[in-house]
Amino acid sequence: MKRVFSGVRPTGRLHLGNYLGAVKNYVALQDDYECIYCVVDLHALTTLEETATLKENIYEMMLDLLASGLDPKKCILFVQSQVPEINELFTLFGMITPLSWLLRVPTFKEKVKMHPDNVNYGLVGYPVLQAADISLYKADVVPVGVDQLPHLELTREIVRRFNEKFGDTFPEPQARLTNFPTVVGLDGKDKMSKSLNNHIELALSEEETAKKVMSAVTDPARQYKTDPGHPNICNVYKLHNYFSPQAVAQITDDCQNARIGCVQCKRALAEAINAYLRPIRAKRSELAKNPDEIYRIMADGAERAGVIARQTLDEVREKMNLR
Amino acid sequence: MKRVFSGVRPTGRLHLGNYLGAVKNYVALQDDYECIYCVVDLHALTTLEETATLKENIYEMMLDLLASGLDPKKCILFVQSQVPEINELFTLFGMITPLSWLLRVPTFKEKVKMHPDNVNYGLVGYPVLQAADISLYKADVVPVGVDQLPHLELTREIVRRFNEKFGDTFPEPQARLTNFPTVVGLDGKDKMSKSLNNHIELALSEEETAKKVMSAVTDPARQYKTDPGHPNICNVYKLHNYFSPQAVAQITDDCQNARIGCVQCKRALAEAINAYLRPIRAKRSELAKNPDEIYRIMADGAERAGVIARQTLDEVREKMNLR
Ligand code: SF4
Ligand code: SF4
Repeated sequence: MKRVFSGVRPTGRLHLGNYLGAVKNYVALQDDYECIYCVVDLHALTTLEETATLKENIYEMMLDLLASGLDPKKCILFVQSQVPEINELFTLFGMITPLSWLLRVPTFKEKVKMHPDNVNYGLVGYPVLQAADISLYKADVVPVGVDQLPHLELTREIVRRFNEKFGDTFPEPQARLTNFPTVVGLDGKDKMSKSLNNHIELALSEEETAKKVMSAVTDPARQYKTDPGHPNICNVYKLHNYFSPQAVAQITDDCQNARIGCVQCKRALAEAINAYLRPIRAKRSELAKNPDEIYRIMADGAERAGVIARQTLDEVREKMNLR
Repeated sequence: MKRVFSGVRPTGRLHLGNYLGAVKNYVALQDDYECIYCVVDLHALTTLEETATLKENIYEMMLDLLASGLDPKKCILFVQSQVPEINELFTLFGMITPLSWLLRVPTFKEKVKMHPDNVNYGLVGYPVLQAADISLYKADVVPVGVDQLPHLELTREIVRRFNEKFGDTFPEPQARLTNFPTVVGLDGKDKMSKSLNNHIELALSEEETAKKVMSAVTDPARQYKTDPGHPNICNVYKLHNYFSPQAVAQITDDCQNARIGCVQCKRALAEAINAYLRPIRAKRSELAKNPDEIYRIMADGAERAGVIARQTLDEVREKMNLR
């Protein structure tokens, strides 16, 4: 069985964009791969000015991940900093990674633009830390979107360099391109994200969900219910594709012929989302009753991940002649 | 008792320049401070292309340090990578250290000139790793030469930033400026160093030492024994100051009045150096008979250093809200 690794940034509660764009895929992969999923709190530190919420964010995210179907019996789910061996491989990989490779990374340039006063050494090393994450667990496969391919290529370059210098140690991880979509937010413009507040959290109540959905931007050209709509430019329509696929043909027809109003259409979407999330939310409430169990799952994941990590590091130290 | 920290790069066997410029001072400090001395192999990796000799270099250096008088009963002597907690503090300090601070460091610019093809991420982070070394052990005092003051200032800045962001955790380490000299090599020009092969290793035999000393450049203006010499520009004379201080007045007089030839003067120096190093060399031979004991001393040092390191890291994680 090939090994999959993926890291999730602890941004707090998951929203539909995270779920459809990544987590749903993680759940599916559990049956065909040995999956290792990591809540990457060290990565969060590269730009997080305020660490006060980090613990809580990790906890909330664990609840969502477990509720969404990540199963500690099928995968290893853990928090990055709880396997401190990551820091050693990060240090060692830093010794063989040219600074120039890192300054070229597009996401680095973007982050410099977003946080010009916060370009710390750790931020520059983001892709090195990622390479260390993947390699510490000798992952064969990394599920990525097209936009992350350059990052994975950098991991492959670092791995190749290590293997050349010190002898074959790590597999060059392969990308597993996901078909999973970039979900547009309720504003109908930008990618769904917490920071833009155009998102729907998995953990919302049904009422909150309905309220959010009702605020969604639809076809802006459609001013009156009697105007025909254009589903292809409407984000509510896109969301129907995920949550009410069986109704999409009807909605297309009704919208284009002005037989359905946007209010009614959104109400249907809210219902569909709520129906979809109902079992996830029920499981989440159940899990939230017992925080100790969540911490136990984290500790158990870290222990299992740690066993692999220490094996890898022993080999690395041997190869690098460090011990 | 205040705590001293200093790191020594595992360059292999020590030479007179290392000894007079640093190690002699380390030995002296043992009585007045709680001293922690670290063979910094991770630092060596920042520029070491070839790690094949690292293990051997560490071992040879340990022999020299112990023979020179570092006493595991008085100080903690250990190898950096054997206390892996250093990597975690390095990672965390990297998150609060602006890249711009690092690119400004004079020694970084120098190293970029010396190893233009080898400017790795780890090399850029050299001062961050140093700050982590010092802070992991909460050292109050760091013995430095004037040239290293900018490095220590950077450590102080990182520490200050951490304390401001996360609450008072680390002391700002104070420089303890050493009076110890920069020893000029046998070429009479450059600082004594292994890479210039103008050095005398502590571990040489008496014959090898004499041969090395006889090859030393003296007052270049003195062509014949009958020419008066200029001790103030003669490196052999400078070395007499360390190894035969009681004879220096006589040598000055004899040299300036051409009553002594350089060959005779160097022979006297070789004898003085050999006499000085005799007990150190005897101890070294003794120690070298039992490599297991050397490894035991390393392991014991790492264990004692590890206890402090883990205490510090627990506090750091707490302060950063990581656990
Ligand atoms: S009816 Fe539905 S699909 Fe058509 S524009 Fe309105 S919200 Fe969009
Ligand atoms: S006699 Fe001694 S001090 Fe004078 S120049 Fe020669 S080596 Fe130097």
